[in-house]
Amino acid sequence: MDRRKFLGQAATAGVAAAAASTLPAPAIAQSMPDLNWRLTSSFPKSLDTLFGGIEHFAKRVADMTGNKFKIRTFAAGEIVPGLQVLDAVQKGTVEAGQTASYYYVGKDPTFAFDCAMPFSMTARQQQAWMLHGGGYALMREFMKDYDVHPIVFGNTGAQMGGWFRKPIQSLADVRNLKFRIAGLAGQVFAKLGAVPQVIAGGEIYPALEKGTIDAAEWVGPYDDEKLGFVKVAPYYNYPGFWEGGTQVTLMINTKHWEALPPLYKHVVETAAHETCLDMLAKYDHLNVISIKKLVAAGAKLTPWPRDVLEAAWKASHQLYDEIAAKNEKFKKIYGPWKAYRDDQYQWFRVAELSFANFSFTAQQTVK
Amino acid sequence: MDRRKFLGQAATAGVAAAAASTLPAPAIAQSMPDLNWRLTSSFPKSLDTLFGGIEHFAKRVADMTGNKFKIRTFAAGEIVPGLQVLDAVQKGTVEAGQTASYYYVGKDPTFAFDCAMPFSMTARQQQAWMLHGGGYALMREFMKDYDVHPIVFGNTGAQMGGWFRKPIQSLADVRNLKFRIAGLAGQVFAKLGAVPQVIAGGEIYPALEKGTIDAAEWVGPYDDEKLGFVKVAPYYNYPGFWEGGTQVTLMINTKHWEALPPLYKHVVETAAHETCLDMLAKYDHLNVISIKKLVAAGAKLTPWPRDVLEAAWKASHQLYDEIAAKNEKFKKIYGPWKAYRDDQYQWFRVAELSFANFSFTAQQTVK
Repeated sequence: MDRRKFLGQAATAGVAAAAASTLPAPAIAQSMPDLNWRLTSSFPKSLDTLFGGIEHFAKRVADMTGNKFKIRTFAAGEIVPGLQVLDAVQKGTVEAGQTASYYYVGKDPTFAFDCAMPFSMTARQQQAWMLHGGGYALMREFMKDYDVHPIVFGNTGAQMGGWFRKPIQSLADVRNLKFRIAGLAGQVFAKLGAVPQVIAGGEIYPALEKGTIDAAEWVGPYDDEKLGFVKVAPYYNYPGFWEGGTQVTLMINTKHWEALPPLYKHVVETAAHETCLDMLAKYDHLNVISIKKLVAAGAKLTPWPRDVLEAAWKASHQLYDEIAAKNEKFKKIYGPWKAYRDDQYQWFRVAELSFANFSFTAQQTVK
Repeated sequence: MDRRKFLGQAATAGVAAAAASTLPAPAIAQSMPDLNWRLTSSFPKSLDTLFGGIEHFAKRVADMTGNKFKIRTFAAGEIVPGLQVLDAVQKGTVEAGQTASYYYVGKDPTFAFDCAMPFSMTARQQQAWMLHGGGYALMREFMKDYDVHPIVFGNTGAQMGGWFRKPIQSLADVRNLKFRIAGLAGQVFAKLGAVPQVIAGGEIYPALEKGTIDAAEWVGPYDDEKLGFVKVAPYYNYPGFWEGGTQVTLMINTKHWEALPPLYKHVVETAAHETCLDMLAKYDHLNVISIKKLVAAGAKLTPWPRDVLEAAWKASHQLYDEIAAKNEKFKKIYGPWKAYRDDQYQWFRVAELSFANFSFTAQQTVK
């Protein structure tokens, strides 16, 4: 806080000094205790749109509470390994974590609804579902079993489909493809005949260079640019149809959430939601700069062939039906989720998509 | 605040009681004086996604300040007429207002960059520009002359193109069309040979019914449904290419903004941004429900013919060039704004649009 400025205002507003000496002061202090939280991320600091989200959030919380509610941020591996954020929050090792819920589909594929899955919703559709379409109620009930209170915490927008050493010209080229891709998307690619690979981030480049793997997916232009894949696997496929609008989640340990004074609960929820707006805006801003640089560096933008998309669409829904048949929790959410998605898809074709289809190409097509 | 719950937590957290009796209490009270603001809207309560935005915002601010910063909300006409929000904020009659900046293009067309104009950006692109692409700096500098500090406050998403008594099948059908449409969009339609009409909201229905006008544009399915236009002008055109992502703005009187304690500034900015996320999610959620009802009630979804879109694209940029030639403030923003828009359009064609084009139609096309 700029003290000089504050004194200036207090004089102008005229009420600050009075308030300090009257009854409300202890009431506010009581509802705003000094508090220190630790917030651990699934992401390294180098992914600065994602990790930057928790820095932005922690600053907002500190700023809105006069620095009384302090949140220390930790990158993946500093105190908790990146893929164990859920576990650390569940155990209460940390009060909160920033993660992508689909990292936990091994525990239960139901986590994917809180993040992204093949042909799930776009960023806006996912936000509509979570905030107004019943998503919050469903996901919060599901995560109660993990002692987690989830809050929507960001979105990457539609991601790219990865880097390929050779162009994919038809579904036949997917067969036996050694593709670094995980989770439900990996299972869909397995159904298409590919061989999904699980490789840590740092090992992808040498594996692509040597040809140990044929392709790898990561995020989108801004994050991908840093890893330099363009030099060893220049075919840059799109879209990442398994990440049409990948949600980032703030997982809070339920006991710590419930122990928060109401004022802090409002601050946390508001700041987390605001972080969504900021993160998506930042991605949309930065991706534009990076896609130009990548193309200049030799990236060959390659759309998925239609037969791959169609086969993936069928394989995805087949997979969801298989999971729903044996997993009650998944089934309970899949029904309303799919109905919601289908309706959203239909409506977005009207105003939003027709605007985009004409306007985004008019520079080239209207003479 | 639920007092019982709070006491329970205080006991758990253990720190609240201590904080109340130590030094920080007066400091917090000083930075959180009792404050009452009036926030007047350009919209009636019946437009509950828009007006609901300020109710949501005021509640967030109250909740995050222990009810010390109270904001009373007023609908259009209660204390200030809907189209005079800027003037009331500028004069300091009210501390803040919710409005659509394009209502003030009569004062200066530069206001349109803060809201929407023909072939401007989508909701996400507009948010990227404002928050990370330099938009805030440009718009805040521009509005200084009006003693206004603007904060992004919401978005409707791409709107529909209005209700027509007869189908528009080609550009020829636009000539002499009496179309209720205002601002820069009206000027573009005038260039296409239409006769833009300015009619207050409540008079549109009878004018459409009698045929005094041929067509009228409003917002999108959820807001349009309430006005019942489907009964008298069933052709529901799309997209509203002059409202690809209409921004709502929180205008704050500069003196009142500068007099706010820093903590309250953070609360206001965070809550306003969070309101954006919430409003757009609410529109996306509700429009789906309404578009179905409208189609069931006889709305005939009609895309604009390609020749209308192309002529409008050309007329829009011609208009912008004309304005820039005689308005230095407009010109200063138009250059960087257009470069930004063009880049955003190009990038969004890749991942986002290819995902949408395949996925949104796959239900119908993939067997």
